[in-house]
Amino acid sequence: MTKVAIVGASGYSGEELVRLLLNHPHAELVAVTSRQQAGQTVAQVFPKFASHPRARTLRFVEPNAELLARQAEVVFLALPHGVAAEFAVPLLNGGARVIDLSADFRLKSAAIYKEFYAHDHPAPELLAKSVYGLPEVHRAAIKGAQLIASPGCYPTSILLPTFPLLRAGLIKPQGIIADSMSGVSGAGRKAELDYLFVECNESVRPYGVPKHRHLSEIEEQLTLAAGTAVTIQFTPHLIPVNRGILTTLYLAPAKHFATADEAAALGAQIAVCYQAAYANEPFVRVLEGKALPDTKNVVGTNVLELAWRLDPRTGRLLVMSAEDNIVKGASGQAVQSFNVMCGFAETAGLF
Amino acid sequence: MTKVAIVGASGYSGEELVRLLLNHPHAELVAVTSRQQAGQTVAQVFPKFASHPRARTLRFVEPNAELLARQAEVVFLALPHGVAAEFAVPLLNGGARVIDLSADFRLKSAAIYKEFYAHDHPAPELLAKSVYGLPEVHRAAIKGAQLIASPGCYPTSILLPTFPLLRAGLIKPQGIIADSMSGVSGAGRKAELDYLFVECNESVRPYGVPKHRHLSEIEEQLTLAAGTAVTIQFTPHLIPVNRGILTTLYLAPAKHFATADEAAALGAQIAVCYQAAYANEPFVRVLEGKALPDTKNVVGTNVLELAWRLDPRTGRLLVMSAEDNIVKGASGQAVQSFNVMCGFAETAGLF
Amino acid sequence: MTKVAIVGASGYSGEELVRLLLNHPHAELVAVTSRQQAGQTVAQVFPKFASHPRARTLRFVEPNAELLARQAEVVFLALPHGVAAEFAVPLLNGGARVIDLSADFRLKSAAIYKEFYAHDHPAPELLAKSVYGLPEVHRAAIKGAQLIASPGCYPTSILLPTFPLLRAGLIKPQGIIADSMSGVSGAGRKAELDYLFVECNESVRPYGVPKHRHLSEIEEQLTLAAGTAVTIQFTPHLIPVNRGILTTLYLAPAKHFATADEAAALGAQIAVCYQAAYANEPFVRVLEGKALPDTKNVVGTNVLELAWRLDPRTGRLLVMSAEDNIVKGASGQAVQSFNVMCGFAETAGLF
Amino acid sequence: MTKVAIVGASGYSGEELVRLLLNHPHAELVAVTSRQQAGQTVAQVFPKFASHPRARTLRFVEPNAELLARQAEVVFLALPHGVAAEFAVPLLNGGARVIDLSADFRLKSAAIYKEFYAHDHPAPELLAKSVYGLPEVHRAAIKGAQLIASPGCYPTSILLPTFPLLRAGLIKPQGIIADSMSGVSGAGRKAELDYLFVECNESVRPYGVPKHRHLSEIEEQLTLAAGTAVTIQFTPHLIPVNRGILTTLYLAPAKHFATADEAAALGAQIAVCYQAAYANEPFVRVLEGKALPDTKNVVGTNVLELAWRLDPRTGRLLVMSAEDNIVKGASGQAVQSFNVMCGFAETAGLF
Repeated sequence: MTKVAIVGASGYSGEELVRLLLNHPHAELVAVTSRQQAGQTVAQVFPKFASHPRARTLRFVEPNAELLARQAEVVFLALPHGVAAEFAVPLLNGGARVIDLSADFRLKSAAIYKEFYAHDHPAPELLAKSVYGLPEVHRAAIKGAQLIASPGCYPTSILLPTFPLLRAGLIKPQGIIADSMSGVSGAGRKAELDYLFVECNESVRPYGVPKHRHLSEIEEQLTLAAGTAVTIQFTPHLIPVNRGILTTLYLAPAKHFATADEAAALGAQIAVCYQAAYANEPFVRVLEGKALPDTKNVVGTNVLELAWRLDPRTGRLLVMSAEDNIVKGASGQAVQSFNVMCGFAETAGLF
Repeated sequence: MTKVAIVGASGYSGEELVRLLLNHPHAELVAVTSRQQAGQTVAQVFPKFASHPRARTLRFVEPNAELLARQAEVVFLALPHGVAAEFAVPLLNGGARVIDLSADFRLKSAAIYKEFYAHDHPAPELLAKSVYGLPEVHRAAIKGAQLIASPGCYPTSILLPTFPLLRAGLIKPQGIIADSMSGVSGAGRKAELDYLFVECNESVRPYGVPKHRHLSEIEEQLTLAAGTAVTIQFTPHLIPVNRGILTTLYLAPAKHFATADEAAALGAQIAVCYQAAYANEPFVRVLEGKALPDTKNVVGTNVLELAWRLDPRTGRLLVMSAEDNIVKGASGQAVQSFNVMCGFAETAGLF
Repeated sequence: MTKVAIVGASGYSGEELVRLLLNHPHAELVAVTSRQQAGQTVAQVFPKFASHPRARTLRFVEPNAELLARQAEVVFLALPHGVAAEFAVPLLNGGARVIDLSADFRLKSAAIYKEFYAHDHPAPELLAKSVYGLPEVHRAAIKGAQLIASPGCYPTSILLPTFPLLRAGLIKPQGIIADSMSGVSGAGRKAELDYLFVECNESVRPYGVPKHRHLSEIEEQLTLAAGTAVTIQFTPHLIPVNRGILTTLYLAPAKHFATADEAAALGAQIAVCYQAAYANEPFVRVLEGKALPDTKNVVGTNVLELAWRLDPRTGRLLVMSAEDNIVKGASGQAVQSFNVMCGFAETAGLF
Repeated sequence: MTKVAIVGASGYSGEELVRLLLNHPHAELVAVTSRQQAGQTVAQVFPKFASHPRARTLRFVEPNAELLARQAEVVFLALPHGVAAEFAVPLLNGGARVIDLSADFRLKSAAIYKEFYAHDHPAPELLAKSVYGLPEVHRAAIKGAQLIASPGCYPTSILLPTFPLLRAGLIKPQGIIADSMSGVSGAGRKAELDYLFVECNESVRPYGVPKHRHLSEIEEQLTLAAGTAVTIQFTPHLIPVNRGILTTLYLAPAKHFATADEAAALGAQIAVCYQAAYANEPFVRVLEGKALPDTKNVVGTNVLELAWRLDPRTGRLLVMSAEDNIVKGASGQAVQSFNVMCGFAETAGLF
């Protein structure tokens, strides 16, 4: 059993980490921290976990990096950006491995970090060491990593559908449009008027237009895949569901198609490309036939599902993906990286 | 008082027409028809209207075109496509004016109708006579019309934001992408598993990809505006709200912009263009400052609100619109056309 | 036109008052106050009202009782309890009539106020002067009132169904149970974790058990109706809808019934009793036949609907009511009292 | 591994059985039947299970009792009442053990069955043999049973809170009131207008008043517990959540209490009673301190949580319970009985 701790465990990602790690066959949850909840048991803070014996004895404590580095082999950070990077330094110095769910270690450039997050990076020297925790893409690097930057929810929903196509040269790297809808848990457990039930229910609205922070990591990763600088268009919308992200991608095939034969030929290439990339991936499901993604089919799981359509009228390729923003988009993916990092079965604790 | 009737009044659009016409200062609702509800009062079928005296006496009847043409000066059709066109013929022959909420008279070409609706048009000779009932665009033609084809819900959310820009030549007519989210009332009051509460709640999903029927009327109208054949990309999604459509449009400005000065100059032109088009329109609200559309601000009203942003990173123009799919997207707009057609104040019964 | 003002207009009740009074045929809204929103127009704070010309010019101001008393003939208070009473004193001294939507003037006893609201009443000398603003019950007193205490949302849903039965002696005054479900707007527009979308959606929970504050005014009013001290059981629940209260009342008929004949005879008396009470009331709808209340049939209206059933198996009478907690349960009822107070048609601005 | 089959696996209870049995450590799912889905794989019908290898190979078949009795040791019936009893006969004759989720074998009296279900019982001779599958109450009898009648969703939410109190004589058996709210999945996966998203969302309504079918089994079981005939009042309401039942029970303590001391003494007895009944039950959680049940804390689990309050103002005891209507209220409980019946750990496959 690997000893693990969660820092900042009272938010939605933290709560999901608690659920996953309490039930993980190879992890022992030795500490959970939260300034507001310190002193309370996990069962008191999250009554839904009260049936788990460990939840009735494990108490939230104040975060203390030095102590945590001694107690735990792997520490998950579910903290706001900025705070996470500061907290990671003493943990790493103390010998713990760190899986950070914030945006702090996702970029290689401190300058771009500052452009998108509006403050200096607290630990720029760590940026080169961190590994972007998307196992389907960076599995080998995750294995030996000391510091993992777990991807954002929107980026996951955009990167997994586009990576194979870009690498295979099937789509043009420029002109990509990603239109996303997210459930309200994406905004975090924060007492703000905008996220009250009455403000979100019976409402749908765009936000963060046109320069959402997640663009920075999406473009860095796509640039990596394409081998050329990629700039994309990304529009997030808030919809009244608890969980789930649905992303519709508008892509330009590298090869022009106009006739039915050309479309069929291109379609065959796309099918092969996705097959090669994902047929053996436990957490990516490429839909077949008439099926289209639906968040209700992935909520509560670590699976991202996707479907694609060629549109002969416009010459575009549409790819649609669905995921649970808190599982594959956050805590589930972090546990998946944990499994890879520690050499466990990649699906351990995730099915 | 103008005598009006509603054919097919038991669906969501029909119900909203009942609400609007019961309270209209210049309309007398003389008949409502529904095969299933014949014999019942409006108050029995729609308890929410029971406080209105007329709702307690007016009874649903079986549809009878000849009789309706004698009883009513204007007949609203809230019937499925195909059925509506058949029903319109005897009404028009009987001297009634017709406002059809179905898709039957929205296109000029019977061939395109057949391509998108998969059956022969029942009354192709009427296509040339019908007027597309978008008052902000076709007000003059609506005035004298005998037959109005009230626009679809998605088309309204796409056409009003794009028309002024296309006419002014500010955007390229090609490459338009419209990504839309609709509430479940858009599917109609039909007993189908897909629209059960449990199937829609906590779910978001695309559908009708990539060739939704509404493309036909959207492209015909945009072609009219642009003076050149327009093909667009359109992806509808179903989200768990009762009412409301949010559309995000991805547009290419005709003029390239890169510097801040160029963006400011182009932005000024767009602002002037929308100001000229909509400053005096009672039912189009161009948002200012940081405000973005939110369906909760328009649900229950005949208003479409829109906001736009230039994205200097991608060179695109984003326009987002919000409307109530059953009001501005259907019954409210039909009443607006009714007002124009009859010479009433255009806002009569709609505020 | 009567000049009116709203103090504390940025909450849900305040917002609904703005809507109703902007469109009221006999009211001129001269001032709206809110500490947080001072300086902004009504259209900026509530984009949904932006189509109303007055909303684009009227600006929120800091509350100033002396000034308001000079500007407005009638002032609506949508403030928290405690604060409302303090604010009412200078308004009344300045000659304004006051309609208070808080709990501050609903009770006659300052001691019971303290028991339930946990602080001394700020203006106990006014308790004797205030009139409980339930027009269906206290219409005559409302006419001449200077100070109206508009009833709470739960109390309205309980009092209107029980008053006629208690007065007619058809039910026993003891043993009444009221089980209620409320939409989340009942909690107010407050940035608290408990009312976040994710905390309320897909959740139902009781709260305020067993001694909710509204018991104080419910019991005072029922005691008045029964002529004997009444204590009731009341359990509120929070459900994931924006608006609406559904109350199910468990009542003991004064007369025992066991046979079908006895049930029919008692049923006839109940029907006559409700008929006498409400047949001419524009805002109470007694359902007939198999119909049962449904909040969706009253949301957005000032109507309370109710239905009743005798249960021969248990000897009980069940009465179920539905209302919009923000309209008939708050702002609509306040406007109804305003109409009565000023001698306008009682339905003015409410249909 | 015990071979199991599910008959009628395309509804909500059937779907949940599929989920639980696919992942059960001691069960091998050998057959799933559905007339409409015959020929399709489980993965095609329920995309959310597509990651499970067995779901991609197991195909729905037409129901055939003789064949199923040979293939499976235990057969779960998720069929409508009436149909279930007919299907059970050949299964039992063929040697299979049967766990029926319908109401067909829950009552001992064919006459009461007919009174509540409006048709003759198809197999009255089996009523004496069936065991009511509430493990917390009938565990011993379940062990050896050939035929288990799994309890209804509402009955479970009412019986578990009341059984211990009735048996201990702490409450009077008469005058019990149960007020319940259920999510829409309780209505089943049926294409009916009443359960469309738009008809349920933003709505709350009572139904089945005052004589819901579940009364029959609730009263039979309570009569058993009390040793005297029990008649209760039960009012179900439909609320817009997918899953979850919240029941509030109004009970009369056998012993009158008025002073604080008497309340404390009675409270201690109740606490001891629940402690004795449920401290060792893995699926019943008695909340402590200020906590009240919330369906969101039990949805997706087989746990029922409850809390109680004495009300010194009225002399009543309130007990509130929350459960997932499809898990503890249906399929989870059926699997719990399956575990008991087969001698597995009672929690196998349920945590």
